[in-house]
Amino acid sequence: MNLLLLSEEDRIEDNLFRVSGERFVHLKKVLRRLVGEKVYCGLLNGKMGFLNILKIEKDFAVLKGFFTDASPEALSVRVLIAMQRPKMLKRIFRDMTMLGVKDITVFNSAKVEKDFWKTDFLEEKNYRKYLLSGLSQCKDTIVPKVKFRKRFKPFLEDELSLLSKDSLCLICHPGGGSSFSSLVKRNLTLAIGPEGGFTDFEINKFLDCGFKPAHIGRRVLRTEVAVISLLAQYVGNC
Amino acid sequence: MNLLLLSEEDRIEDNLFRVSGERFVHLKKVLRRLVGEKVYCGLLNGKMGFLNILKIEKDFAVLKGFFTDASPEALSVRVLIAMQRPKMLKRIFRDMTMLGVKDITVFNSAKVEKDFWKTDFLEEKNYRKYLLSGLSQCKDTIVPKVKFRKRFKPFLEDELSLLSKDSLCLICHPGGGSSFSSLVKRNLTLAIGPEGGFTDFEINKFLDCGFKPAHIGRRVLRTEVAVISLLAQYVGNC
Repeated sequence: MNLLLLSEEDRIEDNLFRVSGERFVHLKKVLRRLVGEKVYCGLLNGKMGFLNILKIEKDFAVLKGFFTDASPEALSVRVLIAMQRPKMLKRIFRDMTMLGVKDITVFNSAKVEKDFWKTDFLEEKNYRKYLLSGLSQCKDTIVPKVKFRKRFKPFLEDELSLLSKDSLCLICHPGGGSSFSSLVKRNLTLAIGPEGGFTDFEINKFLDCGFKPAHIGRRVLRTEVAVISLLAQYVGNC
Repeated sequence: MNLLLLSEEDRIEDNLFRVSGERFVHLKKVLRRLVGEKVYCGLLNGKMGFLNILKIEKDFAVLKGFFTDASPEALSVRVLIAMQRPKMLKRIFRDMTMLGVKDITVFNSAKVEKDFWKTDFLEEKNYRKYLLSGLSQCKDTIVPKVKFRKRFKPFLEDELSLLSKDSLCLICHPGGGSSFSSLVKRNLTLAIGPEGGFTDFEINKFLDCGFKPAHIGRRVLRTEVAVISLLAQYVGNC
């Protein structure tokens, strides 16, 4: 944990915060901070800075200070990703957040196993901790917005075409179109398929919405590695 | 599994191969292939191609055919990575292989927990399966070479300076030097630190060996994500 995330609920006075629960345990047992020492904190959806540890009690600590540093610039990438195995989705949520994505839509696709949609991971109280873990790792405070779209056709036909207007839209699948790094531009909407790939019908639907096909080479990557690779190439080119 | 890996030990005649064990189970239960169907195979350190399934017995199958396709181009990147937590090293080995790395050296560093070196993962028979899993995923047959160097100083002083001659050498740590993507060139040696980062002493040792500092942005990434990001930026730029 490189950043201790605080929320308005932790605030007890203007510049005083009370930390309990898991974050308190981490502060005490892993970071092993003592009264009088500093710890780098961030206010959720706000700024970051060093806070002083005023008090450590049995199950909470009181921190004092001001947030002086702006959070790092967000990536101007909207990610549309087909539903994944929940275990993998957790990692993908954390990794995308770590890399600076702020706008995530998980949608259904033909090759997605129906059971994946039954996981309680899709409730915000459950997936939120993976977003926070990503923020805490990379030192950022802005929580990504996540949407789930269980029906492919209404999502593409009624919602998606509106998105094409303000950004370059790329659909990534092995062997398709031009190399991603040669196409990528600042405002980007990126569609990523399920583990087994998109069907031809789905690809055509995306093309109808103004998406261009792109690939990241001859190698077939696991989805989580493909996601990181695409975002890293975006960062390296924009 | 996108590629069934075969070795010379599986060869029973010129163009006949006998597949048993885990690969056989995968062929039968996951891929659900039948006699007369084809399966995409690769000969370890050789070529790839579709083989016909001649026979399926209780615990083995016989495949027949020729390897016609060359394996994908290797990355001209030598990776030097500080020892990691074994669980993470497994993933990093698989991911690096998937992205095309063929030359991996794992070395000791001040912030590496000594216990990490006690794992039996360091025996080839144990780590090899993660390399093969990476090859099988990305459709490649060339097994990466892996070395372990338990002593930092002899590795840097006696071995490493020889490597600097034929490639650009970059040492990656957050906030150091120029952005990685602006520096990267075709023949590359890449040094990546442990979870807690390099010490100043270690960084200076690398600089003495001709390494230049590089970073991939303000965000602090988990090592496995940093490794994928660096290699993806290399692929996108070379």
